Amino acid sequence: MPVFLDQRQPDFEDGFAALLNAKREDSPDVDATVARIIEDVRARGDAAVIELTEKFDRIALTADQLAISADEVAQAVETVPAAERAALETAAARIRAYHTRQLPEDAEWTDETGATLGWRWSPVSAAGLYVPGGLASYPSSVLMNAIPAAVAGVNRLAMVVPTPDGVLNPLVLLAAQLSGVTEIYRIGGAQAVAALAYGTETIAPVDKITGPGNAFVAAAKRRVFGKVGIDMIAGPSEILVIADAANDPDFIALDLLSQAEHDESAQSILITTDAAFGQEVVASVDKYLETLERRAIAGASWRDNGAVITVPDLATAAELSNRVAPEHLELCVADPEALSTQITHAGAIFLGQWTPEAIGDYVGGPNHVLPTARSARFSSGLSVLDFMKRTTLARMTPEALRAIGPAAETLAASESLQAHGLSVTARLKKLNQ
Amino acid sequence: MPVFLDQRQPDFEDGFAALLNAKREDSPDVDATVARIIEDVRARGDAAVIELTEKFDRIALTADQLAISADEVAQAVETVPAAERAALETAAARIRAYHTRQLPEDAEWTDETGATLGWRWSPVSAAGLYVPGGLASYPSSVLMNAIPAAVAGVNRLAMVVPTPDGVLNPLVLLAAQLSGVTEIYRIGGAQAVAALAYGTETIAPVDKITGPGNAFVAAAKRRVFGKVGIDMIAGPSEILVIADAANDPDFIALDLLSQAEHDESAQSILITTDAAFGQEVVASVDKYLETLERRAIAGASWRDNGAVITVPDLATAAELSNRVAPEHLELCVADPEALSTQITHAGAIFLGQWTPEAIGDYVGGPNHVLPTARSARFSSGLSVLDFMKRTTLARMTPEALRAIGPAAETLAASESLQAHGLSVTARLKKLNQ
Repeated sequence: MPVFLDQRQPDFEDGFAALLNAKREDSPDVDATVARIIEDVRARGDAAVIELTEKFDRIALTADQLAISADEVAQAVETVPAAERAALETAAARIRAYHTRQLPEDAEWTDETGATLGWRWSPVSAAGLYVPGGLASYPSSVLMNAIPAAVAGVNRLAMVVPTPDGVLNPLVLLAAQLSGVTEIYRIGGAQAVAALAYGTETIAPVDKITGPGNAFVAAAKRRVFGKVGIDMIAGPSEILVIADAANDPDFIALDLLSQAEHDESAQSILITTDAAFGQEVVASVDKYLETLERRAIAGASWRDNGAVITVPDLATAAELSNRVAPEHLELCVADPEALSTQITHAGAIFLGQWTPEAIGDYVGGPNHVLPTARSARFSSGLSVLDFMKRTTLARMTPEALRAIGPAAETLAASESLQAHGLSVTARLKKLNQ
Repeated sequence: MPVFLDQRQPDFEDGFAALLNAKREDSPDVDATVARIIEDVRARGDAAVIELTEKFDRIALTADQLAISADEVAQAVETVPAAERAALETAAARIRAYHTRQLPEDAEWTDETGATLGWRWSPVSAAGLYVPGGLASYPSSVLMNAIPAAVAGVNRLAMVVPTPDGVLNPLVLLAAQLSGVTEIYRIGGAQAVAALAYGTETIAPVDKITGPGNAFVAAAKRRVFGKVGIDMIAGPSEILVIADAANDPDFIALDLLSQAEHDESAQSILITTDAAFGQEVVASVDKYLETLERRAIAGASWRDNGAVITVPDLATAAELSNRVAPEHLELCVADPEALSTQITHAGAIFLGQWTPEAIGDYVGGPNHVLPTARSARFSSGLSVLDFMKRTTLARMTPEALRAIGPAAETLAASESLQAHGLSVTARLKKLNQ
């Protein structure tokens, strides 16, 4: 049974705080193992990667088999049915269109002193994309990670995907092809992250690594952070639905379940202004749960982490949602735009009853890599900006230096940084000669 | 003696690679101590912070003395000489003007299916700013960290600054006042970071923590990352100057020294097209070194980490600079704008001989918190965006869902996520009734 809370009850605050603070994930501590793997790959390069791949993925490779060749990709991609290819192409085109609008603008202006100021954006030179193997090998994740990098203008886009027992998902390769991935390696785990960060004889190092992975991959990303950039470390996924009684309870139930089926640690929360509607949704969840292939996972998630919260009005719903700062937020109400202006923290908002969260996972256009575990309070979903960086620009004229140089001299003196001050003083002296 | 390299010599590549890969900082491993401090603050709140402050800063406080009151600030600020106040005000105004231009725009559009897409930016609710005490207590750092947060629209801006033996820098308080800081606490170290991240009875928790600090502060920021957002963990600072023979060697020498005087681990590199000019700069560095109060620090930095590199042309200089990806880059050449278009990785560029790096530290306008240790390959200086996050928006109409829903159903099926597919199918069925 999920938790039931009513915002008008005196014990509400305790129950809601417990929901907010519940630790939904117990990652095994794999840091020591990962540290050894990274050291090994740094020391022995390809040889270490090959050994670890044989050990964990049960395939024996030579160095020249680490890369998946263009021929292999072409062959695998041919096996993809036309309907799936068309769906992936639709998704890729829509994701590309959305992310192209994120390309930031350079700026340059001259201020009242005559100084020219500004900034310039540039892409990282090389990005590495981690794609999990096996069950969680999602072609949609390839699109969501690789397309923003390609739109940013990243030159080298290296993908790693483990192939346990040699099994490869042709849809993943097609997604890579459609997204502009330039290199693919059949490796995974901490060894793949280490190879991307430090390079081996076969794999050139990259500057930024993104993409989801298990506890080993997450620990490896944390460890190589600094040497390269990384995206966020994703936690278990969550959805919050704010719905009034005018909704079809089946729609809402399926949206809650589409989050729950990801993972036993996933969380689905319904906030409604109508307690009876909440009960209808719960009944519908129970009905669909019986039919789902992933009912064990979805059922555990709903039972352990699900919640139904009754509120007196939508303003209260927005306030509670902001305290959750959900990864995905559906606003299934009469005027979702109006309600959305009250939302201050959320990864992605889905407006109105015809926008199920699953649309956002695949074909909506916005990115499905979003901040989890309440981190929407301070971070954003993956975007083109994650693959770019900004260089600031400043040019003083003699007049500008005369105008603002003395303030710099004063501040340098107050911070006892003498050479800082002298570097300005020497120039002002020359200007005044 | 700094390293001398000539790009035309056969052993250049080895020497340059050694320069790139030299580890300039050996941070003590303080992680276990920091972990204990954070646990203690989480468990005991104010009491733990008070105990640790007495231990490390040698001052005994009660809970209601943790905050520096408005009266105390007002009194301290009155002691600041007029010239210093004016300089800080000039700096604050220029930094605010520059950062105001960084405010990002929201977007919303309707695509060819009728779907409405877009995004909306919002500030984090509360930010914490760490300011070191003692010698490295720089008012300029307060401006550079707090003003972007204030411009972003952050509501609560809580500053922590340790006051060892009760000593407080009035300029730091004035900088806080000018920047829009809303709360100040006289605490520091890992205990201050823990208090900001988790909150205590007196200090409400924040969502994002920025600002420089020692190894304990850096380790604490790494540990609380995820619970809150953090800025980058700064490494030792560096400058790279590309200069032709038309420069005044004293200017260049002082710019190299203004980096070197920060820290023995700082790095100053000159790349020049004229070996004789390089020698003049080295002679000038030696001349000024004798006169500097911080000559021990600056001398050690220059001796251990400095480098002078001779190149045949400016294109080669740009190429080598991009491999360094310096935090600060000065282009002291006849046409710095033209050369700047060849720069792909740098935190900040200073164009022309009248723009010493020290201007950027104080009054230029751009931020002086910049990516160090080659991380300009993948990251940017501090900006307004660091205190904001982006929520993506999507609204399907029935027509839009009819157009793209089937592709989502196909992809959900290919990923075996049944409820994802059903959430779309149920809606399409109803639309087709």
